[in-house]
Amino acid sequence: MNLKGRHLIDPNDFTIDELNSILDLAVDMKKDLSRYSNLCKGKILATLFYEPSTRTRLSFESAMLRMGGNVLGFADSTTSSASKGESLSDTIRVINGYADIAVIRHPKEGSAKLASEHSYISVINGGDGGHQHPTQTLTDLLTIKLYKDNIENLKVALCGDLKYGRTVHSLIKTLARYNNISFYLVSPNQLKLPEYIKENVKEKYNATIFETENLEDVINEVDILYMTRIQRERFFNEEDYLKLKNSYILTKDKISKSKENMLIMHPLPRVNEIDSSVDSDKRAVYFEQAHNGVFVRMALMAKLLGVV
Amino acid sequence: MNLKGRHLIDPNDFTIDELNSILDLAVDMKKDLSRYSNLCKGKILATLFYEPSTRTRLSFESAMLRMGGNVLGFADSTTSSASKGESLSDTIRVINGYADIAVIRHPKEGSAKLASEHSYISVINGGDGGHQHPTQTLTDLLTIKLYKDNIENLKVALCGDLKYGRTVHSLIKTLARYNNISFYLVSPNQLKLPEYIKENVKEKYNATIFETENLEDVINEVDILYMTRIQRERFFNEEDYLKLKNSYILTKDKISKSKENMLIMHPLPRVNEIDSSVDSDKRAVYFEQAHNGVFVRMALMAKLLGVV
Amino acid sequence: MNLKGRHLIDPNDFTIDELNSILDLAVDMKKDLSRYSNLCKGKILATLFYEPSTRTRLSFESAMLRMGGNVLGFADSTTSSASKGESLSDTIRVINGYADIAVIRHPKEGSAKLASEHSYISVINGGDGGHQHPTQTLTDLLTIKLYKDNIENLKVALCGDLKYGRTVHSLIKTLARYNNISFYLVSPNQLKLPEYIKENVKEKYNATIFETENLEDVINEVDILYMTRIQRERFFNEEDYLKLKNSYILTKDKISKSKENMLIMHPLPRVNEIDSSVDSDKRAVYFEQAHNGVFVRMALMAKLLGVV
Repeated sequence: MNLKGRHLIDPNDFTIDELNSILDLAVDMKKDLSRYSNLCKGKILATLFYEPSTRTRLSFESAMLRMGGNVLGFADSTTSSASKGESLSDTIRVINGYADIAVIRHPKEGSAKLASEHSYISVINGGDGGHQHPTQTLTDLLTIKLYKDNIENLKVALCGDLKYGRTVHSLIKTLARYNNISFYLVSPNQLKLPEYIKENVKEKYNATIFETENLEDVINEVDILYMTRIQRERFFNEEDYLKLKNSYILTKDKISKSKENMLIMHPLPRVNEIDSSVDSDKRAVYFEQAHNGVFVRMALMAKLLGVV
Repeated sequence: MNLKGRHLIDPNDFTIDELNSILDLAVDMKKDLSRYSNLCKGKILATLFYEPSTRTRLSFESAMLRMGGNVLGFADSTTSSASKGESLSDTIRVINGYADIAVIRHPKEGSAKLASEHSYISVINGGDGGHQHPTQTLTDLLTIKLYKDNIENLKVALCGDLKYGRTVHSLIKTLARYNNISFYLVSPNQLKLPEYIKENVKEKYNATIFETENLEDVINEVDILYMTRIQRERFFNEEDYLKLKNSYILTKDKISKSKENMLIMHPLPRVNEIDSSVDSDKRAVYFEQAHNGVFVRMALMAKLLGVV
Repeated sequence: MNLKGRHLIDPNDFTIDELNSILDLAVDMKKDLSRYSNLCKGKILATLFYEPSTRTRLSFESAMLRMGGNVLGFADSTTSSASKGESLSDTIRVINGYADIAVIRHPKEGSAKLASEHSYISVINGGDGGHQHPTQTLTDLLTIKLYKDNIENLKVALCGDLKYGRTVHSLIKTLARYNNISFYLVSPNQLKLPEYIKENVKEKYNATIFETENLEDVINEVDILYMTRIQRERFFNEEDYLKLKNSYILTKDKISKSKENMLIMHPLPRVNEIDSSVDSDKRAVYFEQAHNGVFVRMALMAKLLGVV
């Protein structure tokens, strides 16, 4: 499937077939990394990070280096011309002469989209405010595919701050497009998934959604438990916070009766929402999930550059 | 022309023949990039940026990577040993053991010169305060050469802040050394080109200089219109600013009767001194100018490293 | 000697034979650099710098690039996920998926050790607070070896702040393990080497230690003069500072009767503790010492990666 020159701003930019072609390539890259070590020789990735991110930036860099390509860019806006008042559309037009593909992380929603409209090299959205984070979604999909073989007929719990988390929004909207995915949304009342996303997913894709405040209600049923962080300052009052906070901290006890092949996922970084005692459980795949981010970004860039 | 081991601090460090040999190589590199993709294999460029600059730093990095070399360095002084009080002359002596060539951007005038005096690897001035910015000048020359074929018999307007802009000073002093260049200096009275530069150019190179406050006076005559930014805080009083500011903002209307093959250039970043409606005009070459910065820096480094 | 997969947190992690095998390889790498230019092709070094350091970071980067490998990482904690509250142990587990070897500089003592306990790729301590700085010690050893051939039967003066300087602590503890090294400790009373280090070195390795406040007492006797910086704020009172400060500034005069083949070393950066008039003295090897840091880090990484 030819994706040369395309941009990736929103996971919905790609059809399910296109997404799957990236995932299939990523699976093969993970299996046989050395076979791809010269794929991007001579290619340059520009990493334009207007706000810091270890994970996203370094996984992109690793992905490009693993394919024999090179990287240039900046890690925060203070070392860029943004501090001189240059517009993002001017910056990307200049970068077009320096690099063959670019990833942009920007605090403002829609910025990656704007950049892509002024770019003839492929632009990848590395996170734009609370909006989208499509390569995290690809990473999540690859992890599911590697363990469950097919992305279908799955009960998926998403737990934590479902209101503001862009990771979760991207993932739900994308998973809903696959066959027979049921969602179990676990969050405090104030941090529920926005209604417009729920409606969209239900109506458009006919997905089943079950909502609860209590993780215990679903933890023994689901195939995937996707944890996210709840920031204390998101709660409306201290009372609610104290009442609920323990409910959203995963411990070894809580998963004692969960399915044996349940996947515990997390986009990382975590603070304390997964107790470290869980790390050694074979169902805890969040570190491997982070590692999968390299392979899926390799596959994505190779496709957009048209070298495979 | 052998330039191995030389430093580039001021464009006048090189003869016209030497400058031309760099430009000729850059033209060929732009035409046939892949032929040079292993030229600097095993070479390391150190980018020592004591103040931030996207454009200069990334174009140097791109240039070195395009030739198969590598890059190390820092993007601002807070991540360097400068914060521990190390002198620049000590830093460059240490860097001599880490890299094969270095580019320095520093807020203090004369700093690149100082560094070069303690270095046995080539040092390139990437901008020292309000003083010099020789690789921007090379970029400008390459752009002119690519469009005008020969750098001679040209009417060149320079518009904006001609008093403080190092880009403009470097360019004028260098262009004056070429054959039959006439300068049209367009600036508010308070931001005129310093007298000592004007005198030097007139006496030494016999260049013609015409000065005005109004862009309209020259815009239909010139072969090249070189725009620069005027910072509001440079004006002595608000009244002057309000009176003149529109005069220095280029719009599609203003160039409607300009020559068909006039070049509109700008060192970038721009803020608002060129209206975005001008971008699509075929005479607007400022983004291509930025891209040319990669080729000319490739040629420069290849020459200084002695690999061509 | 096979060191594949080992960590280097403290110079004592390695036996004298293991240290020597690294130094021997470094000597050969310095002699014949080009022979090793593809040794680490396809390998990635992660540089995790939670506090800035030009010298250490760039020498590691240079070392990896000189062997054909690549580098990713961050130069200060503000551009890393540490700002989101991620633990170091989580960060290193993620980095394990991005790189093949890692160097960590962290303000907190014991942090590199902690990271190594959660890492299956080799972790190198690039400095942890006032604690250890093992690759500086390797650099020092290589410099001594290159000039003195064998690291034995040497009179070594260490001058300056011996209380807080981690460089000095690492060096003394390591040198003491070699044969017949006598130490001449030169420092103000308030900045003497901590008693526990002195006792350890005396009892365990039977090393001779002579202490004085005056550099003049020893400067004509020793084979090596290792200078370090004294920060003004370390003195208890201004009177002591004024009395002693000149005593710890090395000048050409002071070394006029020193041994002809004495080595003047310094971990750099220096501020004013070695007068620049000393730089041209052939006994001043501190810049070459800095350059040796590249070769010894090449050898170290090649050993830990198991590619030699």
